[in-house]
Amino acid sequence: MAEKKLNIDELSIWDDAKQMLRKAEKDGVETAWDRLQQQSPHCQFGESGVCCRICTMGPCRISKKAPRGVCGADADVIVARNFGRFVTGGAAGHSDHGRDCIEALHAVAHGETADYSIKDTEKLLRIAEEVGISTENREPLEVAKDLAADFFENYGSTKGEVSFICRVPEKRQKLWAELGITPRGVDREIAEMMHRTHMGCDNDAANTMLHAARTCLADGWAGSMIATEVSDILFGTPTPRKARVNLGVIKKDQVNILVHGHNPIVSEKILEAVNEAEFIALAKEKGAAGINLAGLCCTGNELMMRQGIPMAGNHLMTELAIVTGAVELIVVDYQCIMPSLVQVGSCYHTKMVTTADKARFTGAEHIKFEMHNGMEQARKVVRMAIERYGMRDQARVEIPGEPVDIVTGFSNEAILQALGGSLDPLIEAIKAGKIRGVVGIVGCNNPKYKHDYCNVNLTRELIKKDILVIVTGCVTIAAGKAGLLVPEAIDQAGPGLQEICGALGIPPVIHMGSCVDNARILQLCALLANELGVDISDLPVAASSPEWYSEKAAAIGTYAVASGIYTHLGHPPNITGSEVVANLALSGLDDLVGACFLIEPDPFKAADLIDERIKSKRTALGLGA
Amino acid sequence: MAEKKLNIDELSIWDDAKQMLRKAEKDGVETAWDRLQQQSPHCQFGESGVCCRICTMGPCRISKKAPRGVCGADADVIVARNFGRFVTGGAAGHSDHGRDCIEALHAVAHGETADYSIKDTEKLLRIAEEVGISTENREPLEVAKDLAADFFENYGSTKGEVSFICRVPEKRQKLWAELGITPRGVDREIAEMMHRTHMGCDNDAANTMLHAARTCLADGWAGSMIATEVSDILFGTPTPRKARVNLGVIKKDQVNILVHGHNPIVSEKILEAVNEAEFIALAKEKGAAGINLAGLCCTGNELMMRQGIPMAGNHLMTELAIVTGAVELIVVDYQCIMPSLVQVGSCYHTKMVTTADKARFTGAEHIKFEMHNGMEQARKVVRMAIERYGMRDQARVEIPGEPVDIVTGFSNEAILQALGGSLDPLIEAIKAGKIRGVVGIVGCNNPKYKHDYCNVNLTRELIKKDILVIVTGCVTIAAGKAGLLVPEAIDQAGPGLQEICGALGIPPVIHMGSCVDNARILQLCALLANELGVDISDLPVAASSPEWYSEKAAAIGTYAVASGIYTHLGHPPNITGSEVVANLALSGLDDLVGACFLIEPDPFKAADLIDERIKSKRTALGLGA
Repeated sequence: MAEKKLNIDELSIWDDAKQMLRKAEKDGVETAWDRLQQQSPHCQFGESGVCCRICTMGPCRISKKAPRGVCGADADVIVARNFGRFVTGGAAGHSDHGRDCIEALHAVAHGETADYSIKDTEKLLRIAEEVGISTENREPLEVAKDLAADFFENYGSTKGEVSFICRVPEKRQKLWAELGITPRGVDREIAEMMHRTHMGCDNDAANTMLHAARTCLADGWAGSMIATEVSDILFGTPTPRKARVNLGVIKKDQVNILVHGHNPIVSEKILEAVNEAEFIALAKEKGAAGINLAGLCCTGNELMMRQGIPMAGNHLMTELAIVTGAVELIVVDYQCIMPSLVQVGSCYHTKMVTTADKARFTGAEHIKFEMHNGMEQARKVVRMAIERYGMRDQARVEIPGEPVDIVTGFSNEAILQALGGSLDPLIEAIKAGKIRGVVGIVGCNNPKYKHDYCNVNLTRELIKKDILVIVTGCVTIAAGKAGLLVPEAIDQAGPGLQEICGALGIPPVIHMGSCVDNARILQLCALLANELGVDISDLPVAASSPEWYSEKAAAIGTYAVASGIYTHLGHPPNITGSEVVANLALSGLDDLVGACFLIEPDPFKAADLIDERIKSKRTALGLGA
Repeated sequence: MAEKKLNIDELSIWDDAKQMLRKAEKDGVETAWDRLQQQSPHCQFGESGVCCRICTMGPCRISKKAPRGVCGADADVIVARNFGRFVTGGAAGHSDHGRDCIEALHAVAHGETADYSIKDTEKLLRIAEEVGISTENREPLEVAKDLAADFFENYGSTKGEVSFICRVPEKRQKLWAELGITPRGVDREIAEMMHRTHMGCDNDAANTMLHAARTCLADGWAGSMIATEVSDILFGTPTPRKARVNLGVIKKDQVNILVHGHNPIVSEKILEAVNEAEFIALAKEKGAAGINLAGLCCTGNELMMRQGIPMAGNHLMTELAIVTGAVELIVVDYQCIMPSLVQVGSCYHTKMVTTADKARFTGAEHIKFEMHNGMEQARKVVRMAIERYGMRDQARVEIPGEPVDIVTGFSNEAILQALGGSLDPLIEAIKAGKIRGVVGIVGCNNPKYKHDYCNVNLTRELIKKDILVIVTGCVTIAAGKAGLLVPEAIDQAGPGLQEICGALGIPPVIHMGSCVDNARILQLCALLANELGVDISDLPVAASSPEWYSEKAAAIGTYAVASGIYTHLGHPPNITGSEVVANLALSGLDDLVGACFLIEPDPFKAADLIDERIKSKRTALGLGA
């Protein structure tokens, strides 16, 4: 436990979080904030990126006394290599998730599973046509076979460019080709990044950074985009629907199951099992009023977008959800799942179940989900949760507050439909300055910040300035809890946004999904650019990840910038030890790819700086600022 | 420069190295040893593997005070994740090199290059048959098309197992399947390893270590093996030939060009250009007696194995080769090329030329080699070297000693031929205890050790014990300089080895190639096991990398162990901070895969321990110890 008492009021802006932090303290449960305190101060070499462990001639640390590693690498090379591997971890996360989706599509197409099916045939055919697969007079499953094969090839070594390059504005395609960063294959770029960063390979920081961009573009325009599109095909393309958020979605009188992770392949089956009469009856038999399923993080986003399932919380709420004492079972797939959840669960009666061989947790129960047994395994999990209901100590249960309403489900298809089938109304609103720009606010929490303070305040400030905000991932819950994901929130927006969103009956902050769904934002930007006949970098758009923590967030930021989208981060990645790399990130990239990073921890200042950028882009397009 | 004067006599066992270290000191040239001194003492967190920089909630360091990172990961998880990424860097290096070889084969097969061709058609057809490609009545280039396509698929997502699984003894295949570590696709395992090690994914150290094994198996039995086999097809399968080693191969009166890196695709073209009459005439015109090409590290091994080109030195000799002052140009492809070479070169007249976009060096000249322009670019490089001859200051030239003779070129095909077409004589010699076992000594140098002391002494000790030694990579030059790579070296071997090698006219230490060519050793072990009807782990064989430094060496060690080969390392990877991981590496793996690591810095003790292991394997096979 922490040595110095934490000031709980300073840790989060939310009452539900503070209440659970007090309960955790009382219950003797260690949280991320305690561990952050133990781990502070952080190693300055690591934080500035100048520590190298890439070979055993080291480890080396760059300082004035020792300006080069044993091999001769200087700070620039070391920082670039570390950053390259960092974003590669993120790109690999999203993309390997995408691969699992393709495997499901392949299994469905080849009749190898009865547990999954094509839910959106129209989208299957549309996407197939888009990547050049003939659909005329063909059975959907035949088309699905070809689409799965094409998508697998997007991970291979034989393509010169990924399939969704067809979505990228021509100017940008040309720019990437000139820079040698056209993404060829997801796994190939990942493997090459790992190769380049081996000792004695790529020793030019700018060259390494360009391949980092290429690797991330493969994530954005292939790995993540494929994950999103295939998930829509298999589980349905999201449409607007209502849902609720915060810890209040956990029910005192019900069996509570939380899903956590990223891939809907597990959680969709859990949802089906939860609704089976047999299990509802069993839960009642055990004394519960029913079975309650709620989401955390991106698996939660996936279920909320498509099914309206409520969300208990974002990254820093995952431990605190268990601290309610009312969670029978948390079932996870992969990514962003704090290893501490096993320990937190063991302080209560909460069982942790892992489902993927690639993400096991010491101390958790492993119920392996495969294509052919998804339903069977889901039923096992639900039964296990119900059995644990009797072990709950109701005296230790404390569930804070009431959930907040939100509206979710804004896929690009849904947005187009809301706009009457064409982007023209949006473009007209942008041209007229009623919507001055669009900003995607995405990503995580990080205990180094007051929880959700930046996420919420940046969102609020931008809509005040008539900037439409799109949220995904953990920012969704922040915006939702702040009451910004409902049409009524137009009260908090500027007059232009108020008018447009009011007329359309949509919130001024649009929920577009999970973190792989940032690919939806890429696609929207490309659609707008193509419609206007400009490059993405000409648009009055920006991205932001105010409270990011993960390699995936850094990969997203990098593919956003390399796609031409100015990107704000609340704090820098570990690159400050190299002037070359830091300058490239903060300005040099603007010359190369028409966008760069902005680092600013203060959400109010960040809003102003993003606004400046949007003004300059509007002016360059000949629009009023 | 170093603060404390280095004791040069303690740094290397070689006179050529010591002489150049003294010259470097006099010339004010910084070397790896100076930088090692500046970087000492190393960070203990990094060295024991308990430092985590995988997300920006950290960096975190595990200690008694802080036993878990901010996310909750403990030392076991952190060490396993770091080790997983470490070997993945190595697997990616070898395998991306293999991909480049396939691209060359593909280009040749599809008539896209006139600069490369099939040099060993017999091997092309044999390998094609081996992986199930029909060759009957087909043109070799047609077969080559299919083989390239099959090999590309070995990097993809659609295969359940890599093609060369057909070489693996059945018992081992079954074991891998049971453990879930059958390698499926090279890039896929690499990407999955990066995914698993993202925050919140794989949080079970043993599970992560198993995937590390799988990733390395994909390197050994696909990436590296493909690199070796395709290189043989394109440039010829090595046959025994004479060559010479040490810095004495550099010529005072000639234009000296050094090739360094790993892939023969560049160096083979340089060799051709060097032999062109036009350039020899030009060199003479400039006052040189001719053009001298010599190798460093594994590109050197590749050229020596196939063409008998001399080797100037191994890893720690690369800087010192330039210190001779007689090197006009060093041309590199990728891997293990110290970034410092640019600086060392700039202290003399030595030009450094890079050839691969994936390995650029700030300050070097970039001449990009592509499939269609290999010869053209090679001629540019050779012309550039000749032009620089006039810039050489002969007063600063100092080339130590005379080269040492060696015999090289022992591919498995060559060994089989030497044995009369069958492994029977080798098996009979093993059964009779004349050859008590076989040990592959491979890998690098590391300035933490007295240069080549362990490499040479372990080799000497093992042959004394009638253990046949196979060398690759940087150990080759060590063994060569020690006079162990000639038939006359049987004088230093035990009586059994003396008899057998004497009868065959081969050295007691066999040079099998570069570091990707460790795949030849895997294949030889598999051939022996299959012939005897046992698993590889039953054989009286071992591997060793006494002075390793690189991620590739760790990947090789891991695939060796996972293939059933007991493997000695002179020092541990950065895993000592986790008992779980260290115990797994040092003993637990023995139960799982029938082999484990041995860590022992003393070459004499290591020889005894390896000998013990070989005795126990011989006994278990019912052979005399």
